[in-house]
Amino acid sequence: MAFDTVVVIGGGPGGLRAAQGIAEVGTPVVLLERTDVLGGTPIQENYAGITPHGEEAEPLLRRMADLVTGNPAVDVRMQTTATALSGDPGAFRLEVTGPDGPAIIECGAIVVATGFSHFDPGRETQLYGYYEFDDVVTLPDLESMLKSHSVVRPSNGEPPKKLCFVQCVGSRDRQIGNEYCSKVCCGVASKEAIEVRQLLPDCKVYIFYIDMRMYGYWENEIYWAAQEKHHVQYVKGIITEVLAKGDQLIVRGEDTTMGRPMELLMDMVVLSVGMEPSAGTREVSRTLGIRPNRFGFVDAVGGPLDPVATSREGIYACGAALGPADLEDTVSSAANAAMRAVAFIRGHVTAAAGS
Amino acid sequence: MAFDTVVVIGGGPGGLRAAQGIAEVGTPVVLLERTDVLGGTPIQENYAGITPHGEEAEPLLRRMADLVTGNPAVDVRMQTTATALSGDPGAFRLEVTGPDGPAIIECGAIVVATGFSHFDPGRETQLYGYYEFDDVVTLPDLESMLKSHSVVRPSNGEPPKKLCFVQCVGSRDRQIGNEYCSKVCCGVASKEAIEVRQLLPDCKVYIFYIDMRMYGYWENEIYWAAQEKHHVQYVKGIITEVLAKGDQLIVRGEDTTMGRPMELLMDMVVLSVGMEPSAGTREVSRTLGIRPNRFGFVDAVGGPLDPVATSREGIYACGAALGPADLEDTVSSAANAAMRAVAFIRGHVTAAAGS
Repeated sequence: MAFDTVVVIGGGPGGLRAAQGIAEVGTPVVLLERTDVLGGTPIQENYAGITPHGEEAEPLLRRMADLVTGNPAVDVRMQTTATALSGDPGAFRLEVTGPDGPAIIECGAIVVATGFSHFDPGRETQLYGYYEFDDVVTLPDLESMLKSHSVVRPSNGEPPKKLCFVQCVGSRDRQIGNEYCSKVCCGVASKEAIEVRQLLPDCKVYIFYIDMRMYGYWENEIYWAAQEKHHVQYVKGIITEVLAKGDQLIVRGEDTTMGRPMELLMDMVVLSVGMEPSAGTREVSRTLGIRPNRFGFVDAVGGPLDPVATSREGIYACGAALGPADLEDTVSSAANAAMRAVAFIRGHVTAAAGS
Repeated sequence: MAFDTVVVIGGGPGGLRAAQGIAEVGTPVVLLERTDVLGGTPIQENYAGITPHGEEAEPLLRRMADLVTGNPAVDVRMQTTATALSGDPGAFRLEVTGPDGPAIIECGAIVVATGFSHFDPGRETQLYGYYEFDDVVTLPDLESMLKSHSVVRPSNGEPPKKLCFVQCVGSRDRQIGNEYCSKVCCGVASKEAIEVRQLLPDCKVYIFYIDMRMYGYWENEIYWAAQEKHHVQYVKGIITEVLAKGDQLIVRGEDTTMGRPMELLMDMVVLSVGMEPSAGTREVSRTLGIRPNRFGFVDAVGGPLDPVATSREGIYACGAALGPADLEDTVSSAANAAMRAVAFIRGHVTAAAGS
């Protein structure tokens, strides 16, 4: 019966891992992806290399997608979104709409893998001039330039001689309501800093940070290499605003190590934007009736030992749908959600058969 | 046939999650635990509360263990270690030794969940006097005091009036060969700092750090609360040595924010010791013939999108066996390894049946 099926919502790295895992243990899966491409944010936002080692993102994500599309146990539905849920855990009826119009999918459990959006640095309290100055870009903007092997100032097409990253844009910030740390921006900025130094050896690269959070192996794999091998300059300091001066940018703030105000001229400023819940995460939470946390990510109700449970039985969430997450943790979290979903269905099916 | 079985090595949070998951999707499991207790480091080292929210560790881990011991599909073998491996992926023969002597287990795949050890702060370059001064303790020592609701100076049984944590002991340290960051010590120290402040409101608590790495929600859940609600004092500074002065301790180092040397009198010093591979992780790697990384953890060969693959097909590793990991990531990583193991067996079994 169809209630032995798991629906996975979202075709990024988390959703792909979940769908693959569920299919491989012999359970039918329907994978819903709202866009017309699998691979999620790394593909949609043109990631160059994957942190920490910078392997090319596109072929890796394509291989993940191929494992799913090539598996007959996975029914992949592109440009399809969930619109309503009825029924009960173990016997859900999920209404979806796609290219062929509306449909109903019967399923026993659901995995939410709807990911994140990058923080929009044009918002409210942000004084970094993202929408004002051409040469102020974001981490994903630079990532996309790195993918095309051309890092130039958008204002004049020239390679920058001085470029800086401003960390914690949209993270660790009570004024905008994002008190959490976005976890990966320190590592991603440092990876991009290395790539800029490799591409433009004459360009000086600075990173202004509150704390450098290169947890685990990222410390030795990225942070040490960035400083010692690639001579990226790390400055502990808080940047308060970015202004124009001639055809350059002034970065103004406080050097907290030296305890004094600082003002530096830059050719390009990269805003290390953090993670926010994606529109998909917000919408799917409403559609499925699962509780969001106060930031709008899916609320993980099970604590650290059961990190993928949501407020509704039979519905599990993973990766950045739950909050900031790196790729490695996203993939594992997806497998955890997948395994919980399959176990829930099997328990339910066995119980039903036994009753 | 027995080759449809997965062996899980290690009965901590990772091994328990893996065993539970494998059993729940209908695959037989043998769980090997070298000690006489399930629950791993949190139980063996008497953790009080789980980071970030401080839920009591023991009942949570006991519940995890009960899910495994109560499942007839899991064959739990206590005080049992793996001694040799023969055969091939999909048809391994694992020799083990336990209370009833040696035995051979046929299995198709293996999950390594052998965890970590805390860094021994008496080692070589360490000038913190752990084995010299009674009032110098480690994070797990203090955790164990917190569990018994009695934080006192070991030297005289009196509650401390001034206590400090020294971060990055055994981590981010090239001299001792541990260049990685241990990921959780910032969060665990801050959680313990809060608990000390709650238990001893008159005790001043300091944390000396290089960077505070409270990634993700740990930022808003622990770091902000520690500072604003519990008045834990965070000082960016590097502690170089701990000395005795009368019946107190002198903590000497550099306040890097103020750019000057500092010397403070303390009643107790807590060394935030990092993670190293456990003896079990080192031994099991040798026994199974899987490659360790240069720190002695199991080498993850698959990159961020396949974080649990080892150098040998059919053998997957998870949690802190692979390197520093928090509980949440350990549990998900374990599910990922479990799912890979089950998929490998099913692929193998299907292939064998089809051939």
